[in-house]
Amino acid sequence: MVEKNKLIKVGIVGGTGYTGIELIRILSQHPYVTISVITSRKEIGEPVSNLYTNLRGHTSLLFSSLDINKLLACDVVFFATPHGIAMNFAKKLIEHNVKVIDLSADFRFKDPLIFQEYYNIEHSCPELLQISEYGIVELNRKSIKSANIIGNPGCYPTTILLGLAPLFKNPNINLVDLNIIADCKSGISGSGRKLEINSLFSEKSENFQAYGLPKHRHKPEIIANFNHLYKKDIDLIFVPHLVPMIRGMFSTIYVKLNKDYIDYNFQNLYEKFYKDEHFIDIMPYSSLPDTKSVKASNKIRISLHKVTNNLLVILVVQDNLVKGAAGQAVQNMNLLFNLPEISGLETVPIFP
Amino acid sequence: MVEKNKLIKVGIVGGTGYTGIELIRILSQHPYVTISVITSRKEIGEPVSNLYTNLRGHTSLLFSSLDINKLLACDVVFFATPHGIAMNFAKKLIEHNVKVIDLSADFRFKDPLIFQEYYNIEHSCPELLQISEYGIVELNRKSIKSANIIGNPGCYPTTILLGLAPLFKNPNINLVDLNIIADCKSGISGSGRKLEINSLFSEKSENFQAYGLPKHRHKPEIIANFNHLYKKDIDLIFVPHLVPMIRGMFSTIYVKLNKDYIDYNFQNLYEKFYKDEHFIDIMPYSSLPDTKSVKASNKIRISLHKVTNNLLVILVVQDNLVKGAAGQAVQNMNLLFNLPEISGLETVPIFP
Amino acid sequence: MVEKNKLIKVGIVGGTGYTGIELIRILSQHPYVTISVITSRKEIGEPVSNLYTNLRGHTSLLFSSLDINKLLACDVVFFATPHGIAMNFAKKLIEHNVKVIDLSADFRFKDPLIFQEYYNIEHSCPELLQISEYGIVELNRKSIKSANIIGNPGCYPTTILLGLAPLFKNPNINLVDLNIIADCKSGISGSGRKLEINSLFSEKSENFQAYGLPKHRHKPEIIANFNHLYKKDIDLIFVPHLVPMIRGMFSTIYVKLNKDYIDYNFQNLYEKFYKDEHFIDIMPYSSLPDTKSVKASNKIRISLHKVTNNLLVILVVQDNLVKGAAGQAVQNMNLLFNLPEISGLETVPIFP
Amino acid sequence: MVEKNKLIKVGIVGGTGYTGIELIRILSQHPYVTISVITSRKEIGEPVSNLYTNLRGHTSLLFSSLDINKLLACDVVFFATPHGIAMNFAKKLIEHNVKVIDLSADFRFKDPLIFQEYYNIEHSCPELLQISEYGIVELNRKSIKSANIIGNPGCYPTTILLGLAPLFKNPNINLVDLNIIADCKSGISGSGRKLEINSLFSEKSENFQAYGLPKHRHKPEIIANFNHLYKKDIDLIFVPHLVPMIRGMFSTIYVKLNKDYIDYNFQNLYEKFYKDEHFIDIMPYSSLPDTKSVKASNKIRISLHKVTNNLLVILVVQDNLVKGAAGQAVQNMNLLFNLPEISGLETVPIFP
Repeated sequence: MVEKNKLIKVGIVGGTGYTGIELIRILSQHPYVTISVITSRKEIGEPVSNLYTNLRGHTSLLFSSLDINKLLACDVVFFATPHGIAMNFAKKLIEHNVKVIDLSADFRFKDPLIFQEYYNIEHSCPELLQISEYGIVELNRKSIKSANIIGNPGCYPTTILLGLAPLFKNPNINLVDLNIIADCKSGISGSGRKLEINSLFSEKSENFQAYGLPKHRHKPEIIANFNHLYKKDIDLIFVPHLVPMIRGMFSTIYVKLNKDYIDYNFQNLYEKFYKDEHFIDIMPYSSLPDTKSVKASNKIRISLHKVTNNLLVILVVQDNLVKGAAGQAVQNMNLLFNLPEISGLETVPIFP
Repeated sequence: MVEKNKLIKVGIVGGTGYTGIELIRILSQHPYVTISVITSRKEIGEPVSNLYTNLRGHTSLLFSSLDINKLLACDVVFFATPHGIAMNFAKKLIEHNVKVIDLSADFRFKDPLIFQEYYNIEHSCPELLQISEYGIVELNRKSIKSANIIGNPGCYPTTILLGLAPLFKNPNINLVDLNIIADCKSGISGSGRKLEINSLFSEKSENFQAYGLPKHRHKPEIIANFNHLYKKDIDLIFVPHLVPMIRGMFSTIYVKLNKDYIDYNFQNLYEKFYKDEHFIDIMPYSSLPDTKSVKASNKIRISLHKVTNNLLVILVVQDNLVKGAAGQAVQNMNLLFNLPEISGLETVPIFP
Repeated sequence: MVEKNKLIKVGIVGGTGYTGIELIRILSQHPYVTISVITSRKEIGEPVSNLYTNLRGHTSLLFSSLDINKLLACDVVFFATPHGIAMNFAKKLIEHNVKVIDLSADFRFKDPLIFQEYYNIEHSCPELLQISEYGIVELNRKSIKSANIIGNPGCYPTTILLGLAPLFKNPNINLVDLNIIADCKSGISGSGRKLEINSLFSEKSENFQAYGLPKHRHKPEIIANFNHLYKKDIDLIFVPHLVPMIRGMFSTIYVKLNKDYIDYNFQNLYEKFYKDEHFIDIMPYSSLPDTKSVKASNKIRISLHKVTNNLLVILVVQDNLVKGAAGQAVQNMNLLFNLPEISGLETVPIFP
Repeated sequence: MVEKNKLIKVGIVGGTGYTGIELIRILSQHPYVTISVITSRKEIGEPVSNLYTNLRGHTSLLFSSLDINKLLACDVVFFATPHGIAMNFAKKLIEHNVKVIDLSADFRFKDPLIFQEYYNIEHSCPELLQISEYGIVELNRKSIKSANIIGNPGCYPTTILLGLAPLFKNPNINLVDLNIIADCKSGISGSGRKLEINSLFSEKSENFQAYGLPKHRHKPEIIANFNHLYKKDIDLIFVPHLVPMIRGMFSTIYVKLNKDYIDYNFQNLYEKFYKDEHFIDIMPYSSLPDTKSVKASNKIRISLHKVTNNLLVILVVQDNLVKGAAGQAVQNMNLLFNLPEISGLETVPIFP
C-alpha cells in the first residue's frame, strides 16, 4: 500500500465522455494514483457519481471548472477533451513540471499542417509538437519515458501500427509493396457520447455500416506515424465500419508479400518481436480472435493467416476504450512515472 | 387493383420520426391509398428516401413544408408530430371534410385539464375533444366509424386496455378490486428519434432500467379511457421499463380476484370476447408470448396465467411502432373509409 | 386475386431452420402461391405455428414427414435442408415435372469434385449438375427460365458476384489484376438454427470475430461461378466475419485497377448494367449503405468508392435471409413460372 | 503481497459454465487466493485459456478430472456444477476440513423434500442441510462465518431477499399483507451455457419474454429462506422474464402497505439497515437504477418509490453473474477465511 502523500496526483480534463469515464474507472483502481480534479464545463459542482452511477461508492469527487491552478497542482493531467483544447494548456503545464497526456489528436502529429488539414483547427503551439511523443508504448517506449507531453494514439492507429510493426520495424525484412489494406470494425462507443442521430440505439442496433470514407482522420495519423516510426511511406487503404456493440475493435489487415517471403515464418517473427510485451498476445498461427476476449482490458491479441501464398492477413483485436484510449493513456503515465507498466491495468477481460 | 383516381389521398404531417416513417412504410404498401404529402420542418425539399434509405425505390416523394392547402386536398391527414401540433389544424381540416388521425396525445382525452396537466400545453380546441374518438378499434369501433377526429392511443394504453377489456367490459363480471398493477416493458424506439443521451446505443445496449416514475403520461390516458370505456375507476400502478431492443412491448398485468372468481374460466372469457378480432390472438392458456412473435405486424398476443388462486396474470405483447402506433392508426383509417380493416396490415411478423 | 385452383402448389422440405421459416413467411404472403406441404423430420404432426408463433393466424399447416408422393403433387419443391438431401429427390421430382429449388449447396457447382471436397459428401446425381442452373437471377436469368433444377446461391456469393458483375461481365472492360479481396460481414442468422455454443446469445452479443478461415465453403462457390459466368479465373481472398445482429450482410470488396481505368466512370457502368433490375439499387457515388436499409427485403444496395487512384472499393448490403436465401429462391420461382419477378417480394425494408 | 505458501488453495468443480468462468476471473485477481484445480468432465487436459481466450496470459491451469484427492488438498472447493453434484462430495470434503461453497441448489434448502420436488433429484445427504448455511451474507453473516458448507443463493432470491429485508427483518415493522409481487428481469447469461434453441442469439436478440411460469425453481427458494430468515410466510407472486442482454438483473417488487405505514419513512429505514454494507447501495429516494450501473461488480443498488399511498415499489439491480452468483460466492469465502469481505471484489462497474 502506497502512502497517501506519495500517490501521484492526477487531473482529468473532460471527464464526461466515454474515454473520460473510462479513465476515472481505471485510475480509481490504480494503486499509485489519486485523482485530484475532474473538470467538466457543463457539470460543475455535480458529484461525478451522480452522472455516472456506476461510480457510486467509488468516488466522492465533484466535477469542477477548468481552473489552471488546480491543474498546476497535479503531477499529470489527462485531456479527454474534444480536439483543440489540450494545446492551449500544455505549455503552461509542462513549464510547471506537470506532465500532459492528451487523448485527443492535438499531439499526435509532428507536422501541424496535417493536423490543421484534417481537424480544421489552427495549432496553437506547433513548437511543442517537436518535443511531444506519440504514445504507442510498445513501439516508442524509450522516447516516451523522457517526454513531457504524450499524444495518446487513436484507436484505429493503435491496432494497425501494432499489427504491422514486426514487418516494418525490422531492418532485415523488406516488404517492397506498401499497398496495405486495413478493413476495420469498431464498436459504437468509438463515436463518443455526442448527441447524434447516427448514435441512437434504434439506428445502430441490428445494423452494420461503413463510415468515414474517404477521409477518416485516423488515416493521416497512421500514415504519419508509420513514417515516423518505420521511416517508410505506407500507401494505406483504410475502410472503417461500425459494429452494433458497445466496446471492441477488430482490424483485418491485408499485406501483399514479395516472392522472397512466400515461405517466411511470420508467426515466429511476431512472437519474438512482442515476446516481452505484457499487453500484446500473439495467438497461435491461424487463430480466430474475437473482441470479447479483450473486453474491458488493456490487451491486444493478434493472429496471422496466410490464405494464399502472396498475402498475409493480420487480425488484431482490442477494447477501443482501453488499449485504444484510456488504458493506453494510463500505460503511458506508468512509463512517465517509472511505475510498473501494468499497474492498474492487470484486470482480466470480462467474459461473457 | 384499385384505380389510381379512386385511391384515398393521404397526408402525413411529421414524417421524420419513427412513427412517421413506419406510417410511410405501411401506407406505401396499402392497396387503397396514395400518399400525397409528407411534411417535415427541417427537411423541406429533401427526397424522403434520402433520409430513410430503406425507402429508396419505394417512394419518390419529397418532404414538403406544412402547407394547410396541401393538407386540405387530402382525404385524411395523419399527425405523427410532437404533442400540441395536431390541435392547431384539426378544426380547419374537418371543416373541409378531411379526416384527422392524430398519433400524438392531443385527442386522447375528453377532459382538456388532464391533457394540460400532463403535457404542459393549453388545449387550443377543447370543444373538439367532445367529438373526437379514442382510436382503440377493438373496443370503440362503432364510435370511431362515424368520427372525424381520431386520437390514436399510446403504446402502453393499447396493451393495457386491450389486456383488461374482457374483464371490465363485460357487465356480468364484477371484479371488486380495481387495484391493478401493470409492469410494462418497451423497446427503445418507443422513446422516439429525439437526440437524448439516454437514447444512445452505448447507454441503452446491455442495459435494463425503469423510467417515467412517478408520472408517466400514459397513466392518466389509461385511467381516463378505462373510465370512458368501462365506466369504472381503476387504481392503476404503472411501472414502465426500457428493454435493449428496438421494437416490441411486453405488459405484465396483475389483477386481484374476488373469491367468486377463483374457479372462473377466464380463458374462455377472453377467447369469446376477441373471437372475431383479426389482430388479437388469445394464446392457449399458460402460454409464454414473446415480442418477437409480433415484430413488424399489427398483431397483439395475449396469454393468461393463474399463478395463485386469487391473482390473474395477463401477458400482452405488441410491436410498439405498429399496433402501438402507426399500424393502429392505419386500422383506424380503414374503419373511417369503410375499407377492409386488415388492408395494408396483413403482413406476417418477421422471424427471427 | 388468383383463383385458388390456379395457385402454384409449393412444397417446402425442411421448414424449421431460419431459411425455411423465411420461405414460409414470404410464400404465405405471395399472391400466386399456396403452400401444400412443409416437412420436418422432428416435428411431424405439429402445427407450424406452434413452433413459430409469429405464424399464428397466418397458416394452419402441420409439419409432415418427407413423403415423396406429397412432393410429387406439388408444382415446385424448395429444399431448405442441410447439404446432401436435395440431390436424393431431385431426379424423381423433375421426372414428374416438379421444379426443384435447392437452397443448400447440392446444385451450386457444375463440377461434383469441388462439391465433394468442400462438403465431404459424395454427389449422388452428378449428371443433374449439367442441367441445373445457378440461381443468381440478375446474371443468369435466361438460363434459369428454362431450367428444372435451381441451385440457389449462398449468401456471400450473392453479394460478391453481383457486386463484381459490371466489371467482369462486360467484354469491353479488361481489369487484368484478378486479385480481389472480399472482406465480408454477416449477421448471426447466417449460421442457421443449429445448437452450437458459438451461436449462443451470450457468446455472440457484444462480440465481433472472423471465422471460416482458411476454407469457408462459399469461396469455391464464388470462384467456380465467377468462372462459369465470366469465363475468368478470380484469385479471391475471402475473409468472413460475424456481426452481433440477427439479419444483414455487408461485403467490402477491394478491386485493383490498371492504369487504364484510373479515370473510368465506374458509377455510370454500374448504373447502366443494373438499370432494369428492381432488386438492385446502385446508390449515388460514395454513399455509405447500411444493412438496416434492406432489412426483411429482397433488395441489394451497392455503392462505389475510389479511395485511391488504383483501387475501387465496392460496398454491398443485403438481408442474408432474403436476397441471400429465401427471397432469391422465390425470385427464382417467379421466373420459373413466368410470374412477375417481384411477386411476393415487394415489401419495403423495415426501419428502424 | 501475501506469501505464496499462505495463499488459500481453491478448487473449482465445473469450470466451464458462465458462473465457473466468472469464478476463475474473480479468483485469479484475488490477492489472498491461488487456484489449485479446475475440473471439467469434457475438457480434461485442456488449458483453461484455450476454452476461454479472455484468460490467455492470466492462467496456465489445465482442466483436470474430478479427482477427490486433488480437492482434499484444497482449503475450499467451489461447485459451479449442475444441481445434484456437490451433495455427493460435501461430506468427505468437510471431514477433511475443506470448506464447500456450492453455487448449485443442493444446499439452499433446510427441507430436502422441497429440493426434491423442484429439482427431481433425491438428496444424498439431507443431514448436511441442517449444518449448511444459506450464503446471503448481508442477512446471515454470523451463521455463515462458522459454517463449513455454504449454499450460495440463486440470482433472483438474492435480489428479492435483500430487497425485502429491511421491511421484514425489523421486529418493529409489521406489514400484515404478505402478498408480494416480484416482477423480475434477467439477462440471458442467467440461462447458462447450455445448448438450447431458446438461448441462441437469433432467438433472444431483439426479443423480450416471460418464462418459468408457473413453477420457477427460485420461487420455493425465496419462500423457504424468507421463512427461515424472517420467520414469516410470504405469499409470493414471482414472474421472471428474459432481457436481450448478457448480464444484469432487475427486480421490480410491489409491497402493499397497511394504513399504519402510509407516512412511514422507508427510505430512512433502508439506509439505516444497510448503512455498513459495502456492496449494497441505497440510492436516493425515487431514483431510477439501471443494470449497467453494476455491470461486472458485486454491487446491489436499491431504490424506493411510493407511487400510491398504499404501495411501496422496490427496484433492485445486480449483475446476475457476480452478486447473483460468483461474486457472492467469493464474498462467502472471504467470510469463511476471515479475509476482508471486499477482497477481490472491489472492482468498479464497467461503463458503458
